[in-house]
Amino acid sequence: MIADLPYEPLLEIIGVFVAAMSGALAAVRKQFDVFGILVLGWATGLGGGMLRDVLIGAVPPVGISDWRLVATAVLGALTMYFFHPRLERARRVIVVLDAGALAVFTVVGTIKGLELGTTAIAAVLVGVMTGVGGGVLRDLLTGEVPVVLHHRQLYAVPALIGAAVTVALWSWDRLDTWTIVGAVLLVFGLRVLALRFRLTVPGPWRGEAQG
Amino acid sequence: MIADLPYEPLLEIIGVFVAAMSGALAAVRKQFDVFGILVLGWATGLGGGMLRDVLIGAVPPVGISDWRLVATAVLGALTMYFFHPRLERARRVIVVLDAGALAVFTVVGTIKGLELGTTAIAAVLVGVMTGVGGGVLRDLLTGEVPVVLHHRQLYAVPALIGAAVTVALWSWDRLDTWTIVGAVLLVFGLRVLALRFRLTVPGPWRGEAQG
Amino acid sequence: MIADLPYEPLLEIIGVFVAAMSGALAAVRKQFDVFGILVLGWATGLGGGMLRDVLIGAVPPVGISDWRLVATAVLGALTMYFFHPRLERARRVIVVLDAGALAVFTVVGTIKGLELGTTAIAAVLVGVMTGVGGGVLRDLLTGEVPVVLHHRQLYAVPALIGAAVTVALWSWDRLDTWTIVGAVLLVFGLRVLALRFRLTVPGPWRGEAQG
Repeated sequence: MIADLPYEPLLEIIGVFVAAMSGALAAVRKQFDVFGILVLGWATGLGGGMLRDVLIGAVPPVGISDWRLVATAVLGALTMYFFHPRLERARRVIVVLDAGALAVFTVVGTIKGLELGTTAIAAVLVGVMTGVGGGVLRDLLTGEVPVVLHHRQLYAVPALIGAAVTVALWSWDRLDTWTIVGAVLLVFGLRVLALRFRLTVPGPWRGEAQG
Repeated sequence: MIADLPYEPLLEIIGVFVAAMSGALAAVRKQFDVFGILVLGWATGLGGGMLRDVLIGAVPPVGISDWRLVATAVLGALTMYFFHPRLERARRVIVVLDAGALAVFTVVGTIKGLELGTTAIAAVLVGVMTGVGGGVLRDLLTGEVPVVLHHRQLYAVPALIGAAVTVALWSWDRLDTWTIVGAVLLVFGLRVLALRFRLTVPGPWRGEAQG
Repeated sequence: MIADLPYEPLLEIIGVFVAAMSGALAAVRKQFDVFGILVLGWATGLGGGMLRDVLIGAVPPVGISDWRLVATAVLGALTMYFFHPRLERARRVIVVLDAGALAVFTVVGTIKGLELGTTAIAAVLVGVMTGVGGGVLRDLLTGEVPVVLHHRQLYAVPALIGAAVTVALWSWDRLDTWTIVGAVLLVFGLRVLALRFRLTVPGPWRGEAQG
């Protein structure tokens, strides 16, 4: 049962709110209309979780059935809609909050995958998809190539590590409130370190011939 | 049971046909090949319903399992394929027919969501997605930013109102043939009014500072 | 039961490997980072099968739950990552291998659709989607219009024929190892013939008026 597992719904609410702001900001920049801004907020805040739920068969996904999550995404999008001239200046804060959303989504997504009896590999993949899926959907809906695929700054790698750690904790029967918070902080910390020190992953290997 | 509910399959057939024409037209304009034109017709005519069915767990979706709907989409695409030089001139007719498709898809989609025991909020979201989903898929497959997200003319708002009215009727136990037709006409009428009087939804809020 | 049906997992492994290489190559050309290259390999190698599994309700899809398939896709992507300067020159080999992937995915996909009790039309559509879906996902994730929709060279048509033949064999109760291999060879042969003789499908019909 999901209810038995000790993760904080509050964390997820914060994650949805921040991710929805990031989606709404992308829509504002593309001069979308109000409906488009709300859709982008909803898709970015809840898209990763919806992808997860469809893949593990937990339908209808919480992204459409849980009014608290939907309302949170709408509120996040509206906040960006009304305050974007001011919020754009607070870019740094948003990037750090986004790191928090990535961390929460990844760990919660991995746990939900495990709860529904998937394999370890499926839980890791589902966790990473929950973490980065909303952003991919945001980019596709605004006509951009998904930034997580080509930007080189460490974004998916912290998620991958966090999902793997969560699965490891589960298999050792060590998943409790403290270790979950620890996994979330691990992803968050790695992402913030990547931002601070501009850590990157390499691009295509050129081979010796062209070196 | 879906069969118990009083909606007209005929309405859905017309909606699929018209939406498939709109998808095929987009493919013709992009110089897609015949297969691409058929796929766009199918995806636009049945994509909203397939998205709905996957989200509410009604798999396989009718968009692949019901041969009558698939044949209708193929016929709609072929009609556009053979007659597009003439049909493009009849743009106004197509736009009005498309308003009909939006109305039918939204109300039928909302009802199917309700039948499968989703929450009210999920039924509204599923209804709107059924209404606008095919067009979004059409735009993504032809490399365009979804027009419903940025075009500003009222398109999704009538769907949102229609889905909300349908859920309200359901919760008051007033959903019958007459009220369903009424909900469809409401969406259709709002959309046609928006077209006639160029009603728009606002773009990004600029804030006082920039006023 | 899937296990009862006589198709060769080895064929599927080869198909996933080759398709993953094609996805990784697209990512290399777009200068994606290593994570993006792996994701493109995974999405292209396993995306068609995941789409199929979601549509027929076989969740979680094998593309996330079967570690052998996931590892194969990762290996295919890594192979392209390390050897792409050399492999690009071997374009012809890759195109032929891709024809093999198309053939295998289509026939296996059709059979999985039939096994899960879909209608004949759904099995054909699911088969074709399994065959071409990975490539469509690859193109969408790299910001391209799906090549299968506009390129005109016969690609989907062999898949369509192969899926229809597979369904026909099933309905005549003639589906065994030999006929399955025959259906795979049919798709592969048609695709290779199309490549060799540059067989194309027509673009939009211009009508008499413009002839």
